[in-house]
Amino acid sequence: MNPVEKKREIIRYHRGAIEHVQDPIVTEYPVTISIDGEEFATMVCSPEYIEDMAVGFLASEGVIQHYDDIDEISFDESAGFVHIRTRRRNELYQLFHSKRYITSCCGKSRQSFYFINDAKTAKVITETRVTLSFDDCFRFMELLQSSAEVFRNTGGVHNAALCDKQGIVLSRMDIGRHNALDKIYGHCLKHRIPLQGNMIVFSGRLSSEILLKVAKIGCEVVLSKSAPTELALQLADELGITTIGFIRNHSLNVYTHPYRIEELHSKGRYST
Amino acid sequence: MNPVEKKREIIRYHRGAIEHVQDPIVTEYPVTISIDGEEFATMVCSPEYIEDMAVGFLASEGVIQHYDDIDEISFDESAGFVHIRTRRRNELYQLFHSKRYITSCCGKSRQSFYFINDAKTAKVITETRVTLSFDDCFRFMELLQSSAEVFRNTGGVHNAALCDKQGIVLSRMDIGRHNALDKIYGHCLKHRIPLQGNMIVFSGRLSSEILLKVAKIGCEVVLSKSAPTELALQLADELGITTIGFIRNHSLNVYTHPYRIEELHSKGRYST
Repeated sequence: MNPVEKKREIIRYHRGAIEHVQDPIVTEYPVTISIDGEEFATMVCSPEYIEDMAVGFLASEGVIQHYDDIDEISFDESAGFVHIRTRRRNELYQLFHSKRYITSCCGKSRQSFYFINDAKTAKVITETRVTLSFDDCFRFMELLQSSAEVFRNTGGVHNAALCDKQGIVLSRMDIGRHNALDKIYGHCLKHRIPLQGNMIVFSGRLSSEILLKVAKIGCEVVLSKSAPTELALQLADELGITTIGFIRNHSLNVYTHPYRIEELHSKGRYST
Repeated sequence: MNPVEKKREIIRYHRGAIEHVQDPIVTEYPVTISIDGEEFATMVCSPEYIEDMAVGFLASEGVIQHYDDIDEISFDESAGFVHIRTRRRNELYQLFHSKRYITSCCGKSRQSFYFINDAKTAKVITETRVTLSFDDCFRFMELLQSSAEVFRNTGGVHNAALCDKQGIVLSRMDIGRHNALDKIYGHCLKHRIPLQGNMIVFSGRLSSEILLKVAKIGCEVVLSKSAPTELALQLADELGITTIGFIRNHSLNVYTHPYRIEELHSKGRYST
């Protein structure tokens, strides 16, 4: 069975001390549910209880009502497919089928680059146009948090900011993690704000989809208060993005492409 | 413009003291993006910078490349539609179009009951088969957290548990919020575990989609460490679900149907 966590060597900074540690990172796997031979939905998930998840998803989507409505269910782990043959299924489901290629919270992937659209729009970053210090990381995260009025009031939103070396260029909040980034991207496209050399500071977890979004926007550094997933870090490795997470209490973790951190500036040495 | 927050009267408990306070709750609005007259995607979002969000979403999906690819964009706030006419659009987009009714993190709604499927599968709960005390709320949240090994290791997942008065019946974790609940639902369907009178304890925010999922599962109480959205609370009002949030540091908020809390047990008085 695929593991729920994987160890990865990361660089941890805490109050001036730098160490290389093996850190457990949560994994993310794409799974496609097929019903009676047709693909129904693809979602990204933690690799355990996958058949239960498929059953629960179909029931909550209204495709089935009882477990008995399923004639056969099998999980092909290597292909990432749950095949379901139904005995009975909701007739309305057919009507809605074409509209229901939806995904769960962090959905839609099948491989690193799920669809050809992602491969076309996520750019590999080969240059280093921005560097930052550990102090910058803490400063940007503090700026993000102090600009987050709705979060302070309600606790219900995510915040994202576009930063350059001077500080925040633009910040947006949304109840949806991706929406906050889309709002930044849309503003920059409209006003032709160049994004090369900029950084994204984010309040939420760094899933594969968030990492892809950062790459599509064209930023080379992403900073987060929270944890990354292993798939996100694989993408960051491939796409040339510096990933910094768990920025809190005078500590942070550098996961990928550490040469953009000024104190770690030696590309050969730390680049993965 | 629709407000980003709304005030709501809630019941706050802190170390034995109960007070009624006006609390700011974050809002959630469904928005559908239509491209050249066809619906492309529906997402739920915070009601500001909606046009930017639509532009950023289309660019990151690869439908457009530049802002100039858009001929006209308008936001019809009352209908919840962003209408976009394109000058140029990615030809591949047509190919993938039928597969791309995807949603952002908390997506897919248009009204309280987005699709007929939701209306059919989300059950209104009219009975009270379970009650709980404030102490139970803290105890269940503690049980959830102590069972959350992967979260402790990685910080990268959400946890959900099914509880009855005795404690946790089943707990599941996933990187996707919805997946953790689907894993519980699927298990219970398979093993015919009756869900009436049970509670869901959840580590994440209570969005409208999570609330609908709880209703579909058939639980009458949902407890969370985090914040709810206003749309989730409207749904909870309608569906008869007791919602308790921000369970931390000896405090919690009761948002809807407080008569299931033993210390507040007087249905007429507090029921909304």
